[in-house]
Amino acid sequence: MEQLTVVKIGGNVIDNSENLHRFLLDFQALPGKKILVHGGGKIATELGTSLGVEAKMVDGRRITDVETLRVVTMVYAGLINKNMVAQLQARGCNAIGLTGADGNIIKAVKRPVKTIDYGFVGDLDENAVAAGTLGSLLQAGLVPVLCAITHNGEGQLLNTNADTIASSVAVAMSSVYQTSLVYCFEKKGVLRDVENEDSLVKEIRASEFEMLQKQGVVSGGMIPKLHNAFEAIKNGLAAVYIGKADELPRISEQDFGTRLTA
Amino acid sequence: MEQLTVVKIGGNVIDNSENLHRFLLDFQALPGKKILVHGGGKIATELGTSLGVEAKMVDGRRITDVETLRVVTMVYAGLINKNMVAQLQARGCNAIGLTGADGNIIKAVKRPVKTIDYGFVGDLDENAVAAGTLGSLLQAGLVPVLCAITHNGEGQLLNTNADTIASSVAVAMSSVYQTSLVYCFEKKGVLRDVENEDSLVKEIRASEFEMLQKQGVVSGGMIPKLHNAFEAIKNGLAAVYIGKADELPRISEQDFGTRLTA
Repeated sequence: MEQLTVVKIGGNVIDNSENLHRFLLDFQALPGKKILVHGGGKIATELGTSLGVEAKMVDGRRITDVETLRVVTMVYAGLINKNMVAQLQARGCNAIGLTGADGNIIKAVKRPVKTIDYGFVGDLDENAVAAGTLGSLLQAGLVPVLCAITHNGEGQLLNTNADTIASSVAVAMSSVYQTSLVYCFEKKGVLRDVENEDSLVKEIRASEFEMLQKQGVVSGGMIPKLHNAFEAIKNGLAAVYIGKADELPRISEQDFGTRLTA
Repeated sequence: MEQLTVVKIGGNVIDNSENLHRFLLDFQALPGKKILVHGGGKIATELGTSLGVEAKMVDGRRITDVETLRVVTMVYAGLINKNMVAQLQARGCNAIGLTGADGNIIKAVKRPVKTIDYGFVGDLDENAVAAGTLGSLLQAGLVPVLCAITHNGEGQLLNTNADTIASSVAVAMSSVYQTSLVYCFEKKGVLRDVENEDSLVKEIRASEFEMLQKQGVVSGGMIPKLHNAFEAIKNGLAAVYIGKADELPRISEQDFGTRLTA
């Protein structure tokens, strides 16, 4: 099977133009088929503030009212996505910037209101990703750059977690490609001692995950991240990597951050 | 040759959600391959005003400074484009929203500074459109929705006239498809008496264009529009139509607005 790398970046790369520039150079140099997934970052919050749209957070999650949806659509799908595409094109990488609405590649379900009304937020089920359409773009030599906006198939755009998009896309493509998923974040990977970048845990097997939680090595926001990663592996991914964006070139030697395997 | 219809809409359709809704219904119902090209409209000006970015116009042309480029990228490529795509998807039309940077489909040249510095505005030459990439999207069953943003291939996005994009795309595709170009604007077409919608000129041949200018039937902003249209016909288009968006369904009987032919 041909190889496919799905790389997800977040605010720590996007918010700093020098980091982003360097990352895009490394991304375009990755061998084989690839897909980039990006979140938002500070720019959306800043634009919202300029427009008098306050960021509403509950339990660390953004509440997406109609005004916030306008802002994230403009910033994620417009400003950030198109500038990244233009920069990749300048380096000879034939990028194509997409939301989930484009080509109906990711169809989400508006999150049901339980205790919290998240507003226009989309959740993905196992049939969310149109692997065939994404596959035909890849086969045409295009490099999809996906932002964190999807749709419900009934005309409504939905704000959707970029980590979830990345893992859903990777899992969906794993039936056709040998797919690796790479999460770039601010640390070198999972650290035994969060203050010490030299304490990197190089590999975690699914069977070790529970123990590492008990030991406190994996805690806080890393727990759902790793939980989702192991779910994705169970569903067919070759491997999931979590590490620092500026070490991306090491992925070709499979020596990037923390490697999660079955 | 298979038929392709390239339809261009402007602010008068985009600015009114009812008009836009109705137009998108008519557009998705068009038979054969199709491409939609859209301009901006008032939303960009309004967002600019909210952000303290004043619209700068010289001779009816928008000057695109770096702040204005940010605004139009957010509004054209983000807000307008993605909402149109989501609405088309809801009607079963497999739309894919793109700028010229995406898939490198339209590469422009930043307009040289002569008497006026237009800023980040792109002009198109005869090799601007990547007909092969657009063709492979059409063959994959996708319906490209192009906004008025291109790039220079060196990482710079450029604000580009949507009429020009529409005609350049139509001409480029005319080597592979029997291509018609449809400009939707606020009038029924070219009118003998601009105050009287019943005075529609149903057809204009290239040889009649000069005479109609002398008679004053074609004047003002219609002159460059028709000039570009006849250039496009000379370069291979089957026909160019100019008419009112709400009469679009009549295009299948070739009875829409004013028909320009060789």
